[in-house]
Amino acid sequence: MKEKLWQHVQTVRKQSPLVHNITNYVVMNNTANALLAIGASPIMAHAKSEVNDMVSISNSLVINIGTLDEYWLESMIQAAETANNRNKPWVLDPVGAGATAFRDNVLQEILKFKPTVIRGNASEIIALAKKNSTATKGVDNTAKSTEAIDAANFLTTKYDSVVCISGESDFIINDRDVAYVNNGHELMTRVTGLGCSASAIIGAFIAVIENKQEATIAAMSLIGLAGELGYKLANGPGSLQMHLLDKLYNITEEEFYNYLKIA
Amino acid sequence: MKEKLWQHVQTVRKQSPLVHNITNYVVMNNTANALLAIGASPIMAHAKSEVNDMVSISNSLVINIGTLDEYWLESMIQAAETANNRNKPWVLDPVGAGATAFRDNVLQEILKFKPTVIRGNASEIIALAKKNSTATKGVDNTAKSTEAIDAANFLTTKYDSVVCISGESDFIINDRDVAYVNNGHELMTRVTGLGCSASAIIGAFIAVIENKQEATIAAMSLIGLAGELGYKLANGPGSLQMHLLDKLYNITEEEFYNYLKIA
Amino acid sequence: MKEKLWQHVQTVRKQSPLVHNITNYVVMNNTANALLAIGASPIMAHAKSEVNDMVSISNSLVINIGTLDEYWLESMIQAAETANNRNKPWVLDPVGAGATAFRDNVLQEILKFKPTVIRGNASEIIALAKKNSTATKGVDNTAKSTEAIDAANFLTTKYDSVVCISGESDFIINDRDVAYVNNGHELMTRVTGLGCSASAIIGAFIAVIENKQEATIAAMSLIGLAGELGYKLANGPGSLQMHLLDKLYNITEEEFYNYLKIA
Repeated sequence: MKEKLWQHVQTVRKQSPLVHNITNYVVMNNTANALLAIGASPIMAHAKSEVNDMVSISNSLVINIGTLDEYWLESMIQAAETANNRNKPWVLDPVGAGATAFRDNVLQEILKFKPTVIRGNASEIIALAKKNSTATKGVDNTAKSTEAIDAANFLTTKYDSVVCISGESDFIINDRDVAYVNNGHELMTRVTGLGCSASAIIGAFIAVIENKQEATIAAMSLIGLAGELGYKLANGPGSLQMHLLDKLYNITEEEFYNYLKIA
Repeated sequence: MKEKLWQHVQTVRKQSPLVHNITNYVVMNNTANALLAIGASPIMAHAKSEVNDMVSISNSLVINIGTLDEYWLESMIQAAETANNRNKPWVLDPVGAGATAFRDNVLQEILKFKPTVIRGNASEIIALAKKNSTATKGVDNTAKSTEAIDAANFLTTKYDSVVCISGESDFIINDRDVAYVNNGHELMTRVTGLGCSASAIIGAFIAVIENKQEATIAAMSLIGLAGELGYKLANGPGSLQMHLLDKLYNITEEEFYNYLKIA
Repeated sequence: MKEKLWQHVQTVRKQSPLVHNITNYVVMNNTANALLAIGASPIMAHAKSEVNDMVSISNSLVINIGTLDEYWLESMIQAAETANNRNKPWVLDPVGAGATAFRDNVLQEILKFKPTVIRGNASEIIALAKKNSTATKGVDNTAKSTEAIDAANFLTTKYDSVVCISGESDFIINDRDVAYVNNGHELMTRVTGLGCSASAIIGAFIAVIENKQEATIAAMSLIGLAGELGYKLANGPGSLQMHLLDKLYNITEEEFYNYLKIA
């Protein structure tokens, strides 16, 4: 399996997929940098006048509702619908699901277009499945990842999506099985938007790899390892962000095999 | 006093307040990172459809008008009104006050909702008090901090706010006295948005500390020290931003006591 | 020539021009940091209610269409018209030209206001000249820089602009001649928005230097050198961004003379 995942990392580097992101203002810069570091080509575009064209020329789409508003919501719906119609793989990152009724209603709308992959923390995945919103502590992870597996199974069945619950362990769930990635480091939660970067990286992998669960595992392996190895060089969250980007770019095959913890 | 301020730093880390930011595009990323580094939980949200809900679930609010427009203005007004009605502490960062009539009119609207703390550079605080806008050089500080104290006293009396004038020395003014923080380094003015980060950090401290002047002094002490100690490790503004974030996270009690210069 | 260019670098530092940016969400932070690092004063503002006022108080304007939408388009048009009417120098960065019909139509509108400088990669410059859009691979450079020189000559003649085609070599073209800057490093293409930073830096130089081609050469020299020298200290794209910002700030006269490759 490790060999296959490393192959997928190489495939992204070689094919350099164009990944269209409709994402939040907070993370646009480090998300674009994460995609560039792994060899992909990011594009950020949200204008209703061009969003369908952008989906059409891109190899995949990432929708992240972090700082959405009424205008962006319409763009996201348009883009998701176009992606679904044209069989373009796409990722939904339901940032802050459960925090407000607005978010929950938007998410129910967007889910209709069957995201290829849904990635969120445990609270978000639970809120997404419940629909009836529970209080969440903003964009943080409060529920245990394991408690979210039922919710993920529900979403997988209903929307035919691969669901990734990220946290101390990452769970990647499809309709047949659950895979685990046990890399990363707790300090990553003190850097904004690494979950969003993970979603974007998933977007790059599903653009060029047929097996979408494997693509998601490979993506979570890569960012988890980059965070874990980057942490060893870091003195705090500022330098962790920098080393993580460097490591996304310069991780070696040896590091990948030696440190990856999957099951 | 130093002991009390260090206690406040610990309180933020322990209680991890949820700080709702309606802030500018330029600084969203490093502001969120500054809040995470000090142990707080940032949320950025501006949609009129959810802004009141976000204020309600948050422990404090930060409004920063840096890149405002007509839509964001309405969100800011809504959020400030809700914060005021619900007695949620909130910070106003009047970026670029005095630069355009639009900004000055917006600020007069927002001030009605009595910010708990106002933080700006001397030019901005003067412009805020004058209403009649004077030319400012963009978001830079052109007037001397000391010249702004009269303006701050006026604002403190009229709006019952703590006013923080940041600059070479930071002045923290309430209706009874003036405190000074003399940390920081000039190179911090060559990193975008450190004033905005200061405002956000104030937002975290007033969320959990009752005495709002003390909370503001603690916040300015922490970022001033992080900048000053970060500078010693830096080769320029790029590495200063990184080291400052690291230091916000890893500053020790000893460093806090040894280097803090307050009066 | 090198002496003259270094003088221009010093002039920007001394005069600290106020550069008004209407730019994209992805790069606002590192663009502002690039401007601060070279000694300029950035302002980011896009509200239709103030955009003309901002152009009026600024020394130059930079329009970058990276994440434009219908609202921002109107702001850009307003700002470009005001800049043109008031003889304020301004830069157009046609990000993603050729990618969608929306972008191409917008660009034709904006070009009417005769940008002082146009900076793009070869694909974008070609698309701008062709009007009839050809497929581009997002914001990446797919066509050879040399193939774009004809397009640049067309634009220079039609709009009286200096045209800068950035790539492995940068070409700076006016109605009389072509200059080359051969600095930089390939890894710069793995950091988001360095082209956008280049455009903003050009904005700072044309604000204070009369000869607009020389100003553009000086700007491209400075960022190319900062990238090339920053690369020597970097382990990947994360640290390259940081070292580049440091080097924009601390580059020495000796480094400038020893490493600059112009023709």
